[in-house]
Amino acid sequence: MCEANAYMVTNGQEEPIMESVDVIEPEEDDTWRLVSIFGDQKIVKGRIKRMNLVDHKILFEHRED
Amino acid sequence: MCEANAYMVTNGQEEPIMESVDVIEPEEDDTWRLVSIFGDQKIVKGRIKRMNLVDHKILFEHRED
Repeated sequence: MCEANAYMVTNGQEEPIMESVDVIEPEEDDTWRLVSIFGDQKIVKGRIKRMNLVDHKILFEHRED
Repeated sequence: MCEANAYMVTNGQEEPIMESVDVIEPEEDDTWRLVSIFGDQKIVKGRIKRMNLVDHKILFEHRED
């Protein structure tokens, strides 16, 4: 399966947000809806910092402005 | 392998941008750098419309403003 794990990066630390993310959709600017393969949803405020699909990683960061 | 294929959605049509995308990184607002598993890079102007990792799909759309 090709889901990924989402993290919020704060001061260089990766805090887990959600595992096994399937869908990532923008809700509004800097707000994203994540849906896991199990169907649970989470809203994330922040911007995408980097995604590494081969490493199964989605990194978010807080907007700095 | 868990790379995905990137498409630009224009009027409901999905035009392929790049296959086997590994890394997605913001360059600036509404500009993204894609790097494939083969190491080639592409810059995409637009916003992320939806990603379905299990389906290996990344959909971009042109900003409507």
